[in-house]
Amino acid sequence: MLPFGRVAIIGLGLIGSSVARAVRATMPTVRLTGHDADPAVRDTALRIDLVDDVAETPGAAVIDADLVILCVPVRAIAAVGTEIAPDLPAEAVISDVGSCKAEVARSLAAALPDHAIVPAHPVAGTERSGPEAGFATLFRHRWCILTPVDGTAEPAVERVAEFWRRLGATVERMTPDHHDRVLAITSHLPHLIAYTIVGTASDLEQVTESEVIKYSAGGFRDFTRIAASDPTMWRDVFLTNREAVLEMLGRFSEDLATLQRAIRWGKGDELFDLFTRTRAVRRSIVEQGQDDAAADFGRTHD
Amino acid sequence: MLPFGRVAIIGLGLIGSSVARAVRATMPTVRLTGHDADPAVRDTALRIDLVDDVAETPGAAVIDADLVILCVPVRAIAAVGTEIAPDLPAEAVISDVGSCKAEVARSLAAALPDHAIVPAHPVAGTERSGPEAGFATLFRHRWCILTPVDGTAEPAVERVAEFWRRLGATVERMTPDHHDRVLAITSHLPHLIAYTIVGTASDLEQVTESEVIKYSAGGFRDFTRIAASDPTMWRDVFLTNREAVLEMLGRFSEDLATLQRAIRWGKGDELFDLFTRTRAVRRSIVEQGQDDAAADFGRTHD
Repeated sequence: MLPFGRVAIIGLGLIGSSVARAVRATMPTVRLTGHDADPAVRDTALRIDLVDDVAETPGAAVIDADLVILCVPVRAIAAVGTEIAPDLPAEAVISDVGSCKAEVARSLAAALPDHAIVPAHPVAGTERSGPEAGFATLFRHRWCILTPVDGTAEPAVERVAEFWRRLGATVERMTPDHHDRVLAITSHLPHLIAYTIVGTASDLEQVTESEVIKYSAGGFRDFTRIAASDPTMWRDVFLTNREAVLEMLGRFSEDLATLQRAIRWGKGDELFDLFTRTRAVRRSIVEQGQDDAAADFGRTHD
Repeated sequence: MLPFGRVAIIGLGLIGSSVARAVRATMPTVRLTGHDADPAVRDTALRIDLVDDVAETPGAAVIDADLVILCVPVRAIAAVGTEIAPDLPAEAVISDVGSCKAEVARSLAAALPDHAIVPAHPVAGTERSGPEAGFATLFRHRWCILTPVDGTAEPAVERVAEFWRRLGATVERMTPDHHDRVLAITSHLPHLIAYTIVGTASDLEQVTESEVIKYSAGGFRDFTRIAASDPTMWRDVFLTNREAVLEMLGRFSEDLATLQRAIRWGKGDELFDLFTRTRAVRRSIVEQGQDDAAADFGRTHD
């Protein structure tokens, strides 16, 4: 039994277009409609035949959907919720893919008080953006976190869980607040730091930007991948998950100051102990299939 | 004309063993000797036939070499220089592969005042360590920076440059001090930050280490690769290039505090502007062949 038969995707960027491709690949009988606020993205979606029907408005996309997935930047979710309300079938389940869940759950519950709302966050992505960046296998072997709003009927939650399992993800549930803390450290802070250091490197007087680029294989290039992520999406994440991000940033700054002091005073043992401990974390990530076992991310050296 | 005919490699870890393999692949008539302080590494080198002769002491390895490359952690270089001095042929050229050059150049010049010293730094590596982690193509399309000591005869510098070109690298020259500043931002600070955030994530009370690992695909996992690099090597780098690392760290902390303030006060435009600027840096790195063009470092999603 398919969990849903008529899926509407609002927002056809990297994640929305990956959902569309993954649905086509794994549930080919599902009828897919889509909408994007950008007319150029709608044109591309039509040209590459991303969905069965590209609608001109969000309302037209959802009008006979049984699952609506909002794949827009998190600060746009409330407005889209309000906009689709009049056209939404009573039995439609509403979900999203945003990186912050507490605020999203609150605003969707306010905009659509009579609907089953099952916020979701597939922990997957690349540094690319737009409808042509998506691919059908993006969610395979990744986690998808559901943060159901209080009072949501269990069958609706289970159908959304089954939907993501069909796309290849493993589903986990947690409260929106806990999600936002976990993601603040595993995703939001890493992005913030990567953006910062790439900015710092571009602003030096004594080292040119051309040198930074030439010698980036010493480690810097790893950070630039993350710092190439979508600016609108990430602006919204930091403004929305502000409290948890600032909390984690406080911890990080403390730890960095401690390390700074160890370097200044030549405390080699402290450095060595930390560097040994962090090595073990990497090992666990690879063992649990959350990253390639190949050295250097499997980069080619030919 | 081969630049050197008898090459001794002291230190048979990731870089030393990659040099050995690359020499075998590109200059098969070169006679290769090697030594490592760790008897287990010497046994492995023998077993995998890494070099023509595995010597029991550094002195025995260099006794008829015309090029000696020290591939040991930077704080071990001075001692090795002193140790090989009595056995070193007068005409042998001395080089190394260390990530800090001012201190290395000084200590090698002090230990071996009568020799041609051409410090080198191939900007390449992976998070793996040991003689079995190396591979022959590690240096291809990467930069190798030479920082010749004042008064070194030009032909010696040119032979070392040719040696690295044969291994596939593009050679650049700069002063040791400039090298140390450039690498502080493109390599040392990124490592320091990666080690820090992986430590921070392991120490939280509200988020378990198991959650950090499960949801690491949100960005964190990119940092763990770098934070899995060799602890001894990196301890030595931070202690040796202290001034430049602390300078770059000061800049980074300033920029991070600015971003922190922008998040706290909801200044979305500031965030958006930075995130747009950093995206362009990534584009340049890919365009200049310093990283894979494929999304997500070319990680497989199957």
